[in-house]
Formats: sequence, structure tokens, C-alpha cells
Amino acid sequence: MSKDMSDEQAREQRHRERMQRKKAVVDGAIARADIDCGVLLVLTGNGKGKSSSAFGMLARALGHGMQVGVVQFIKGSFSTGEEAFFRRFPEVRYHVMGEGFTWETQDRTRDVEAARAAWARAGELLADPAIGLVVLDELNIALKYGYIELNQALDALAHRPKMQHVVVTGRGAPQALIDAADTVTEMQVVKHAFKAGIRAQKGVEL
Amino acid sequence: MSKDMSDEQAREQRHRERMQRKKAVVDGAIARADIDCGVLLVLTGNGKGKSSSAFGMLARALGHGMQVGVVQFIKGSFSTGEEAFFRRFPEVRYHVMGEGFTWETQDRTRDVEAARAAWARAGELLADPAIGLVVLDELNIALKYGYIELNQALDALAHRPKMQHVVVTGRGAPQALIDAADTVTEMQVVKHAFKAGIRAQKGVEL
Repeated sequence: MSKDMSDEQAREQRHRERMQRKKAVVDGAIARADIDCGVLLVLTGNGKGKSSSAFGMLARALGHGMQVGVVQFIKGSFSTGEEAFFRRFPEVRYHVMGEGFTWETQDRTRDVEAARAAWARAGELLADPAIGLVVLDELNIALKYGYIELNQALDALAHRPKMQHVVVTGRGAPQALIDAADTVTEMQVVKHAFKAGIRAQKGVEL
Repeated sequence: MSKDMSDEQAREQRHRERMQRKKAVVDGAIARADIDCGVLLVLTGNGKGKSSSAFGMLARALGHGMQVGVVQFIKGSFSTGEEAFFRRFPEVRYHVMGEGFTWETQDRTRDVEAARAAWARAGELLADPAIGLVVLDELNIALKYGYIELNQALDALAHRPKMQHVVVTGRGAPQALIDAADTVTEMQVVKHAFKAGIRAQKGVEL
């Protein structure tokens, strides 16, 4: 046997042993996690990826034939691609809050009314066991501005159908929502194209 | 005028002023960002949301009528929902690396061959200006294990069509890839349902 051959075999062997140990750890963790239930996910932080992640889960749910619902609490010039796409599907109930960003309207009364109307749609989704996944996009912003009362939101989330998943997105998730959630990801900006002068691009931000 | 009324009006006024300042900042930033080009996004870190975010961008791109491509470098029992969903669309070129997780196969030679075959598909997508968005899901894992050479990947990314967007996901993105990227998000685990004994759920992880 050549030296190269035995080096390669040794490398294969080390890889096999490392992967066997990893498999034991992964298999053990999988065996211990045996609960099925609806999960509450919160995606927060300043980094890009919160809303797109929620929409990726929507696609996953549709792949499993689930009925899903979306309420977008902040509408602007953004969000055009996902809305155009997901409105194609009869399994998706899609509601966009009728007003622009809160710094576009500059009208608190109008914003509050629009947010409450959007919350009413969210409440319907959170009461319907036929809806397997609910996306509450930018709800954290509406909570932050006090347009929607936190306790009301927490109450509706706590009393939703047992198997229903909910994804809440937006910067600055309130601590009580984080406490109530099953899975929370903080998305941190390492860098952003926008700072380098690249405007929001279709298929990425739009 | 009642005191309540004037309090409410003062609150409205403060809101309007705050939002006017915010709008000026946002509008200024938007005006300064005037470059259109393909962006390279890297989604890394241990938190949930990397792959789902990439798939949400895929949905956005489809909403704009773009042609898109996906290569999934790690196949397992995971990833069933998005694959079932996105394979429905003729605008999506979808390739899943033929083998399981690397700790499932425990066979480095087979993994390397599968990764290189998957990379060949990625290379085709990265050379095709008709493809507006390319998702290289879990490429970071294949790079970490050395299944795909980093310099080869960086070279293909650098020479892709000018308007093509690429999203690379996976834990442990190499620093050179972060340096090459336009937008990078580090997804941090605040908490995860799995640790509380809840297994991966359809529409969320699957």
C-alpha cells in the first residue's frame, strides 16, 4: 500500500469516527424532543432576514398542504414580491394593513385605526384551528408604537389552537413576547448592502 | 377645549414631529442608495431562520417573475416542505445534493463526490444571466468540511452575472466569504423549541 493511500484511509477513518460521534449526539437530541405542538417563533433584531424567513416558513407550510394566514402590519413600498406571490394561492389568507409606514403617514390616529383593523384580522386567524401557520409580519413595530396593546396580543397568542404555529417579526420584540415564545432568533447586522449605496433590490428586499 | 383633548392633540403633534424627523432620515438614506446590482447575501449563525429566509427571498423573486435556482448542499429528513413547494414552479431550477447529512453517511469520499456534483450545478446557475436569484443552501457546511474549495466558490461568485443575487446559508460562514458579501446577517439563538423537547415541526423546520 502506498503512503498516500494509507493517509487517505486514515483521514476517512477519522472522518467516520467524528461523524459517528456527531450522529450519536444528533440522534440523542432528536429522540429526546418528542413533543408535537404549535410553536411561537419570534424573529427580531436589526439584521436582514426576519420577514423573508417568515415567508420561507409560509412556503414550507404550503408544501405540506397547510392553510396559512398572513397579516402585514407595516405596508410601504416594500413587500411587493411576497404579496404578489403568495396571493396566488387559495390556501393563503393575506391581509396587508392599509396604510404606509408610520413615518410616511405621520398621522397617529390613522395608524392606530389601521393597526387595530389589522389586529382584528390577526385575531380571526389566531382563533381558527384550520389555519396551521400565521405570520404576523412587523407586529413588533405596531407593539412598539403602542398601536396594539401587548397584553391583548399575548392573550390571543396564548389561547390560539394547540397545533397552530405563529411567526412574529420585527425589530425590538418586547421581552414579554420573547418570554412567551418557543423559538427566538436575534438577527444581527454584520453588514448591509444599503450602507454601501446599493438600493433595495427586487427578489431580495422587495 | 377639554384637557383630555389637548393632551391627545399634543401627543399627535409629538408623534408627527418624531415621524417627520424619521422620514427625513429614511428618505435621505434611500436617496443616497442609488446603485442597482446583484447582491451577495450571507446568512450565518446558529439561530433558526437562515434557510427559511433564503426561501422567502425565492418567493419574493418569483413574485417579480424572476427565474431562480436552488442548490441544497445538505439533504436530510429536513427540507421537505420547501422542496415540495418550490418544485411546483417551472421558473425554479431545484437541485438537492443526493446524499444525507454528512454525519448520516459517515463516508467522506461519497460526501465529497456528492458535494462536487452539487457544486457543478451551482456553477451552471452562477454562469447564467437568465437566473436572477441563486440560493446556495448550507454551502457554508460544505465549505467547512472542505468538500468544496473556498477559492473556487469565491471565484465563481465574483464572476457571476452583474445583476444576479446570491444567498448563501449555513453556520460558520468563512471570513473570506463574509468579506466578499454585500449583506451579512448573523442569526443568534435566543431560545429554541427543540431544547424544550419540541421536535421539528412541519411548516416551521420541515
